[in-house]
Amino acid sequence: MSDGKTGLQLRSLIKKSGELEISLVSVPVPEPGPDQVVVRVEASPINPSDLGLLVGAADMSTATASGTKDSPVITAKVPEAAMRAMAGRLDESMPVGNEGAGVVVKTGSSDAAKALMGKTVAMIGGGMYAQYRCLRAAECMPLPAGTKPAEGASSFVNPLTALGMTETMRREGHKALVHTAAASNLGQMLNKICLKDGIPLVNIVRSKEQADILHNIGAKHVVNSTAPAFMDDLTSALVETGATLAFDAIGGGRLAGQILTCMETAANKTAKVYSRYGSSVHKQVYLYGSLDPRPVELNRAFGMAWGVGGWLLFPFLQKIGPAEGAKLRQRVIAELKTTFASHYTRVVSLQEALQLSNIAIYGKRATGEKYLINPNKGA
Amino acid sequence: MSDGKTGLQLRSLIKKSGELEISLVSVPVPEPGPDQVVVRVEASPINPSDLGLLVGAADMSTATASGTKDSPVITAKVPEAAMRAMAGRLDESMPVGNEGAGVVVKTGSSDAAKALMGKTVAMIGGGMYAQYRCLRAAECMPLPAGTKPAEGASSFVNPLTALGMTETMRREGHKALVHTAAASNLGQMLNKICLKDGIPLVNIVRSKEQADILHNIGAKHVVNSTAPAFMDDLTSALVETGATLAFDAIGGGRLAGQILTCMETAANKTAKVYSRYGSSVHKQVYLYGSLDPRPVELNRAFGMAWGVGGWLLFPFLQKIGPAEGAKLRQRVIAELKTTFASHYTRVVSLQEALQLSNIAIYGKRATGEKYLINPNKGA
Repeated sequence: MSDGKTGLQLRSLIKKSGELEISLVSVPVPEPGPDQVVVRVEASPINPSDLGLLVGAADMSTATASGTKDSPVITAKVPEAAMRAMAGRLDESMPVGNEGAGVVVKTGSSDAAKALMGKTVAMIGGGMYAQYRCLRAAECMPLPAGTKPAEGASSFVNPLTALGMTETMRREGHKALVHTAAASNLGQMLNKICLKDGIPLVNIVRSKEQADILHNIGAKHVVNSTAPAFMDDLTSALVETGATLAFDAIGGGRLAGQILTCMETAANKTAKVYSRYGSSVHKQVYLYGSLDPRPVELNRAFGMAWGVGGWLLFPFLQKIGPAEGAKLRQRVIAELKTTFASHYTRVVSLQEALQLSNIAIYGKRATGEKYLINPNKGA
Repeated sequence: MSDGKTGLQLRSLIKKSGELEISLVSVPVPEPGPDQVVVRVEASPINPSDLGLLVGAADMSTATASGTKDSPVITAKVPEAAMRAMAGRLDESMPVGNEGAGVVVKTGSSDAAKALMGKTVAMIGGGMYAQYRCLRAAECMPLPAGTKPAEGASSFVNPLTALGMTETMRREGHKALVHTAAASNLGQMLNKICLKDGIPLVNIVRSKEQADILHNIGAKHVVNSTAPAFMDDLTSALVETGATLAFDAIGGGRLAGQILTCMETAANKTAKVYSRYGSSVHKQVYLYGSLDPRPVELNRAFGMAWGVGGWLLFPFLQKIGPAEGAKLRQRVIAELKTTFASHYTRVVSLQEALQLSNIAIYGKRATGEKYLINPNKGA
């Protein structure tokens, strides 16, 4: 339905009254500045990091649909206790969608911009759940010839996060990794990277099915956190790999503390002297997600040499600087159809993304249920 | 009762059967090697860090006394769930007492050792709850003339820990500090250091009495965690001071998370753009004690730029290296009777330290209840 002059854009709004409203608005397609291009967005994934902005702290079990088929509106209640954390975005209608890919349909006057005309590019920068996105040419990453937008839609968040994990491991002096929710798209990428680079990786999953997914792509160490022998299995894998750094997507509950406890037990198996402060081996868990919104519970049965903290891609990229970041991006492009290939359950339009039945599925953030939005689907 | 050839030494033993036994044993006074000296220990504090080794994970509500007046024995049960953490010390009779002071009564043949004969020295290295302690001359720190052993007994753990906090603050790029259990001996020292060095310090205490102690020594920011307005009071103090680093002696419960939450609120008061990941200001809490043995509970209402971790004096000293450590020790000696003066509730003998009535008091680790052991009291 787009005439190229206006386009639909998905917006998320949390009102001071405690109500979330997700809707589509029609916005003019901006005229690109000299260094800018306009991209017709054809693929943008719904990552857990997008859901944080899309639904915020709203309780989606209260969600209701209104509006029309072409212009659906979703509303839901934000629990009062969660409103404090929403203070910074109240009454501000926010575009959503961290990354995506599409075709450049209009360019500014600069050579760099003009060179992109007609090219399929990957983008990052927010506001991708929209039919058109205007951004600087330098912010577009041209995809190799023959790459479809759907294949390049997830070129940034997951690939760079996975590479950020192995890079953080090297920079902080660890030699192996632990990863949770390990059968996710991201987790599968991490396995491929680690297999290719010879990094021992301990995968923690929550079901036999997830374990099978990873075994099928060659994962060596997979432990199931719902198994009765979980702590022993994890400890054995940690002894074998020497992993003292974990990236945890779960966040809440006892898992981060259990990982530290098993790391400590593994470290003490080789310790020579008793110290009531525990081993002197530094054990680190970075929480990079929040699949479980409950509080983190740490029982501190792991000595004093430990840390737990937040980890985010963008601060990491800032820390390593643009030159190192460019190296990581080059690797992503080179291995886009192999190491960094993403898989989606469904491709939906903007309107379909606002159907309660779809929100119920992608809102679960469940492993293996990944949606891709094509804002120009059927347009 | 010491003849100078044997001396009493306090021992803590946790048996495989799950029983803690604290007792006094008579051990021969070692003949010092060329570089060693024998010190008659006259003062050794009971620090929280000593209690960890002294009683371990035992449930002291089950403690019973046996033995004789001269040779008392304390036994207590270690809860089964806590035995895993005790694995490294089972069936090993361990001397206790991190630091102390006394008089050198015998020396080895080296000049360095002989130069210490008759001197009052401060010591660190464990096993100080003993009538005699043999150690290397280089491990003794001679105290200025006129300093009593009781005045030099706490020359290491608390002073260097307090200095370690301000030093960590500088090294990790923070400009102000938060401290909990802030009216402790250590907390009072930290206030004196911060007042002297111009470092803004936010003190968190649990009662009006503790707040009064700190106000009386000139503390500017004191907030009471039991007050209904605690979170608001803390946030105001954090806005005023800009503190983004906390040292927490409590450990368990929600306090560490509350501090991070208030730091985040304070940071967002000056933030210009909404980020659903919270402020980009890194907020850090180091747990250096465990006054509350419950699990740490973090509700993560503080964005993604945060860390919680263990902090210990000795790894810190290793990290900064011997030259920097020596500078800190020199400052302690220079200000031993002012900034670094310690106060004790009671001075007890080794036998008195094993009376249930005394264990009930010092075992509480309560602010203002600090014991000093004089192993040669009445001897």
